[in-house]
Amino acid sequence: MVGGGPGAFIGAVHRAAIRLNNNADLVCAAEANEKMAKAMGEDLRLDPDRVYDDFTKMAEIEGAREDKIDWVSIVAPNGFHYPAAKAFLLQGINVVCEKPLCFTEEEGDDLKNTAKNNNCLFCVTYTNTGQVMTKQARAMVKKGVIGDIRMVIAEYPQDWMLDVLDNTVEDSRPWKADPRYAGRSACAGDIGTHIENWVFYVSGLRIEKLCCNLDAFGGSPLDNNAEILVKFTNGATGVYWASQVVPGYENALRVRLIGEKGTIEFIQEENNYLKVYLRHEPEKIYSRGCDYLEEEAKRYVRIPCGHPEGLHEAFANIYKDFCRALLDKHDGKEIDEGSYGYPTVDMGIDGVRFTNKCVDSSEAGSIWVGME
Amino acid sequence: MVGGGPGAFIGAVHRAAIRLNNNADLVCAAEANEKMAKAMGEDLRLDPDRVYDDFTKMAEIEGAREDKIDWVSIVAPNGFHYPAAKAFLLQGINVVCEKPLCFTEEEGDDLKNTAKNNNCLFCVTYTNTGQVMTKQARAMVKKGVIGDIRMVIAEYPQDWMLDVLDNTVEDSRPWKADPRYAGRSACAGDIGTHIENWVFYVSGLRIEKLCCNLDAFGGSPLDNNAEILVKFTNGATGVYWASQVVPGYENALRVRLIGEKGTIEFIQEENNYLKVYLRHEPEKIYSRGCDYLEEEAKRYVRIPCGHPEGLHEAFANIYKDFCRALLDKHDGKEIDEGSYGYPTVDMGIDGVRFTNKCVDSSEAGSIWVGME
Amino acid sequence: MVGGGPGAFIGAVHRAAIRLNNNADLVCAAEANEKMAKAMGEDLRLDPDRVYDDFTKMAEIEGAREDKIDWVSIVAPNGFHYPAAKAFLLQGINVVCEKPLCFTEEEGDDLKNTAKNNNCLFCVTYTNTGQVMTKQARAMVKKGVIGDIRMVIAEYPQDWMLDVLDNTVEDSRPWKADPRYAGRSACAGDIGTHIENWVFYVSGLRIEKLCCNLDAFGGSPLDNNAEILVKFTNGATGVYWASQVVPGYENALRVRLIGEKGTIEFIQEENNYLKVYLRHEPEKIYSRGCDYLEEEAKRYVRIPCGHPEGLHEAFANIYKDFCRALLDKHDGKEIDEGSYGYPTVDMGIDGVRFTNKCVDSSEAGSIWVGME
Amino acid sequence: MVGGGPGAFIGAVHRAAIRLNNNADLVCAAEANEKMAKAMGEDLRLDPDRVYDDFTKMAEIEGAREDKIDWVSIVAPNGFHYPAAKAFLLQGINVVCEKPLCFTEEEGDDLKNTAKNNNCLFCVTYTNTGQVMTKQARAMVKKGVIGDIRMVIAEYPQDWMLDVLDNTVEDSRPWKADPRYAGRSACAGDIGTHIENWVFYVSGLRIEKLCCNLDAFGGSPLDNNAEILVKFTNGATGVYWASQVVPGYENALRVRLIGEKGTIEFIQEENNYLKVYLRHEPEKIYSRGCDYLEEEAKRYVRIPCGHPEGLHEAFANIYKDFCRALLDKHDGKEIDEGSYGYPTVDMGIDGVRFTNKCVDSSEAGSIWVGME
Repeated sequence: MVGGGPGAFIGAVHRAAIRLNNNADLVCAAEANEKMAKAMGEDLRLDPDRVYDDFTKMAEIEGAREDKIDWVSIVAPNGFHYPAAKAFLLQGINVVCEKPLCFTEEEGDDLKNTAKNNNCLFCVTYTNTGQVMTKQARAMVKKGVIGDIRMVIAEYPQDWMLDVLDNTVEDSRPWKADPRYAGRSACAGDIGTHIENWVFYVSGLRIEKLCCNLDAFGGSPLDNNAEILVKFTNGATGVYWASQVVPGYENALRVRLIGEKGTIEFIQEENNYLKVYLRHEPEKIYSRGCDYLEEEAKRYVRIPCGHPEGLHEAFANIYKDFCRALLDKHDGKEIDEGSYGYPTVDMGIDGVRFTNKCVDSSEAGSIWVGME
Repeated sequence: MVGGGPGAFIGAVHRAAIRLNNNADLVCAAEANEKMAKAMGEDLRLDPDRVYDDFTKMAEIEGAREDKIDWVSIVAPNGFHYPAAKAFLLQGINVVCEKPLCFTEEEGDDLKNTAKNNNCLFCVTYTNTGQVMTKQARAMVKKGVIGDIRMVIAEYPQDWMLDVLDNTVEDSRPWKADPRYAGRSACAGDIGTHIENWVFYVSGLRIEKLCCNLDAFGGSPLDNNAEILVKFTNGATGVYWASQVVPGYENALRVRLIGEKGTIEFIQEENNYLKVYLRHEPEKIYSRGCDYLEEEAKRYVRIPCGHPEGLHEAFANIYKDFCRALLDKHDGKEIDEGSYGYPTVDMGIDGVRFTNKCVDSSEAGSIWVGME
Repeated sequence: MVGGGPGAFIGAVHRAAIRLNNNADLVCAAEANEKMAKAMGEDLRLDPDRVYDDFTKMAEIEGAREDKIDWVSIVAPNGFHYPAAKAFLLQGINVVCEKPLCFTEEEGDDLKNTAKNNNCLFCVTYTNTGQVMTKQARAMVKKGVIGDIRMVIAEYPQDWMLDVLDNTVEDSRPWKADPRYAGRSACAGDIGTHIENWVFYVSGLRIEKLCCNLDAFGGSPLDNNAEILVKFTNGATGVYWASQVVPGYENALRVRLIGEKGTIEFIQEENNYLKVYLRHEPEKIYSRGCDYLEEEAKRYVRIPCGHPEGLHEAFANIYKDFCRALLDKHDGKEIDEGSYGYPTVDMGIDGVRFTNKCVDSSEAGSIWVGME
Repeated sequence: MVGGGPGAFIGAVHRAAIRLNNNADLVCAAEANEKMAKAMGEDLRLDPDRVYDDFTKMAEIEGAREDKIDWVSIVAPNGFHYPAAKAFLLQGINVVCEKPLCFTEEEGDDLKNTAKNNNCLFCVTYTNTGQVMTKQARAMVKKGVIGDIRMVIAEYPQDWMLDVLDNTVEDSRPWKADPRYAGRSACAGDIGTHIENWVFYVSGLRIEKLCCNLDAFGGSPLDNNAEILVKFTNGATGVYWASQVVPGYENALRVRLIGEKGTIEFIQEENNYLKVYLRHEPEKIYSRGCDYLEEEAKRYVRIPCGHPEGLHEAFANIYKDFCRALLDKHDGKEIDEGSYGYPTVDMGIDGVRFTNKCVDSSEAGSIWVGME
């Protein structure tokens, strides 16, 4: 693991997810400096010889071992994703990397090629792809339950940046609001991309062009509100709204895929359910774990319906699929990464492109920009 | 009453609302032709001599009576609003008119001036201004509960146009999808304006410019989906989405006013409640009829909390305020129409301008257009 | 109308309901004394000669008129229901009476017989029988959608008696907490009976015996909390809970009918919806006004789905059915009151019996008592 | 671990919870026979020498080791709880045991004494005590937020026994419906006790007496529906309803504690939230992870608000507290088990008594029985 020392949110989630699967052990890690690395090593009871204060060193030393690690999980701030991923790929080590994958499409293409050339698997952890009900939505769209999609209405409001703005609460994730670490965008890049990814993952729709307004309320150096009109290549249109300054909204990703025959609605905070509306029928609430779910969803269910699963299980599902691919690779099978269900490096590149186009559009006066 | 014969939806609602108030009687009416007029007269047990097949005739004859009617309610298809309203105003008869007020700003200004010159009151029945919880939201915003507004996120999805599209269900309101009667826009004009009005009515925010995409799915001659980016004169931004082709959504107006200190959320289908989110506090659900409501809301409450009110009561509240103004006018008082709480001709003109700007923007390739 | 002068809650609701139907006029009324009668007459613009300070007088004088009233609506405090209803029945005047019908089964039987002997119709206004979604539930149960019913779980919590208890808020309905006017029970009688009636109206289930605990918290002279175990004659069992001292609960009647094949759930505060759960299927939310409703429900729909109806419409539906029966009676048809959909005097008697058995059970130490 | 081999639901949950805490390793286990033991050992990659087909053997052998296990988790069917727990306690091994603790109060007292005499800690895993929002409710009740409690209304409907009844779905937990393994009660014992425990854990209220109706619908050998009137020693009263045959209800524990000043409502399926109603205030929805929570709740929060936690985290919280006690014991501190937050053997005994009194009451004709 690179990053994710004491106090880090997402690193702990990755480790919890892996432990839930109970099929891998954390054996080495790197943090930003000696002090943080030491703290992380002690906290996680790692062999001190395998705790590093520099991911390059870690990649080199660990990459040279006979009993090479099966993969590295990169959970450091955004700016480190590209160099860290590249370093490990060059050692032939498979990579699981947090989103955003990197800052530019060129970096993304480089990672993709490096992975290919080094025969490495590459997973980008878009959380919500791991939700059981995301799998259910995907299977239902594929089956044609809602028909051709006409509109996509999606939102992702949060409120935590309000505390960053007024500094009344100490923020454990300040780098997300800092252009040096977060890149060109805070809001569109951090959570707008979750919308972009979820929609593509579930529906397969490709954005043709978009028109984006970014706001940086409260004197923020980066955007904390993104409002985006979207046109898809199939003729569908949509609205994406992401914001980090909405009082009372915590992590409220909500996507509606609206087709000719029906509407599917996913709400992350109610992740055990999926709403389905078909014409001339009552609204239906599908529940995770029930026997009427599609097979593609059922196989991710861990506990019976009525017993809530949450964020950890969603992450664990991503790792579970990734480990399936690892084992197949280990068995010498030909791997089609897209077929395992985990989000691929291509989706990571899509996210980078989406973010950059949003910033481009907004900076040019919220004009339409193509995605090509 | 002009329009609203047997089978018409909104005319019946107007009459029910007036009856709920129990302070006025319907004495005369006009419908589009002799047959419809006769049916309406019989259905409503009107004096046959005061049932007309032509609103011009009605305006002339009724306008000449000593015991002139106190006001006329115009609930005919959109295209008749302007000529009918004008005809009655010229007779010195006060007007209550359905929205959209008319088709062009020029018509709107003409009605405003005609009303003024003939000393007439003019109310445009934007339904949701009459909701108790709209009054509550308005009072809270005015008190500064949510602070300065940064974002407005609003939507109004419906599904009934799907049936019009596929002709499998007989549609009682086909004129709404017909350019001859509905004007330049079906969706933006019919329900987008409800968003525009509610936001202004509650917050006072003025739109500076907008960027709109209209879709006419299913081969419709008019738009049935509207996606709009909005910038307000105070620096706030927003997203409005209205659609008539969303399977499973009935009449789901939902507006969130997002301020520096809090968020207020109104959902028309849950009209007895208002959600309020303040920073660092739990979500709160205000309930119509409770003693903690603002005075401006309380005085519209008809029945105790827990006993639902609905559409009829909202309309009745508009008429109640309008009748207060009528009585004051009758008593010779100086009338400031905006102070009574009912939506004014100015709001009607705003709606017309909004609709036209949406169409202008969309037709020009979804570019930004100013509202001036 | 008997009772329902200025300030009274339910009388105003009755009048609003009748006006919504627009098929009857209020022409005479009685209130408890001269002052109240005068106020009521003026408020409702009645002919002063037909406003009475004594319902007996009213029954005699109005009963002697050629143009006799079609019916009387009795909305006075509970204790007046029996004598008032009897007085009008003896004059051959049809009766609509608030629940509880009266205080004893003997009184109830007397009213039933008096109605029969005088060829009068008799409706007892259990509000929720008039809800569209109650009709939907009834039709679905009848069709066997949920199979044989095994359990009935119902509750009706309110909070308004808390204000009566602490006297911090002036109570406009104090007679409901006063044994002289309310009878032996406040809570079981006033709202427990709504549960009892709804269950029977929708399911046809008959209670065989019950075991009841009544509490009179806060030093109340009458019960304000009722907890009841119920056994039905068909072998089903159930729990009824009604309470008037539940902070935060307004008028939250909620009934679940649980069958072998499915569950139906009605929530009064969400009266435009009905929840249906069938085995191995997602939860479904039926919406008032939609085309998939049963015919028995559809014909009560007044406005399209998505536009809320509320309490007034529910009451209006009861009156609508009652007026259908009146017209049929007027046309000389044989009347089977139970077939019109409005609640009958038999249901009123059931409610009285239920209330008395609850009090009997509780007073005897919460033992089981039979309903025979 | 005793029990919990491949396919078992709750054993897997225990292991996942322990892994989430990342502070203990599973090193040995017992299952019912050689085949199951072997499967379990392989599945969990245990040392084959430490996998047993008999818990007595396991207790003896493991109890004799120098590096004795820190504790044993007993997740076998109910009937094995008592003998297994006793066997380990006698070896001085701390015990975590699933509920119900055992079948009789005598067994319970024996376990309590055996634990005491062997200086062992004893935790009974009532899941919902581990929920963050349970901790929040407990802290709020203790602070007096809702005042003295007057009523407790609780329910726990499920539907999974319907499948057992009709045998159309293979049931992996048939022992829960089998008197040989489940004891005298299926429904009251399995889920009724969750209500009983939650109420006591949060409120401290003690039941004085109860009146219970048990139903065994569908020809079940054990109850699958329990309806219970309850009186508490402080004068409060309540209704508990638990059922395993409610179509569409999955695992819907819901408890309302109703006090003089407010109501608190916990719904297990919405475990990240807690509803709070205070008089003359809007309904409030508290959200797990927010900074306004009580300290007693905050310290159990694992991930930020808006990111759902579920069943695994609730279990992990119980183990976390248990491990805190283990470490303190290891450090030689005096242990007051009740102070750590995990459910104690006393609560286990309460559950056994509650179940037996329910059966006693129902068998005697649903009469009131005291809890002494």
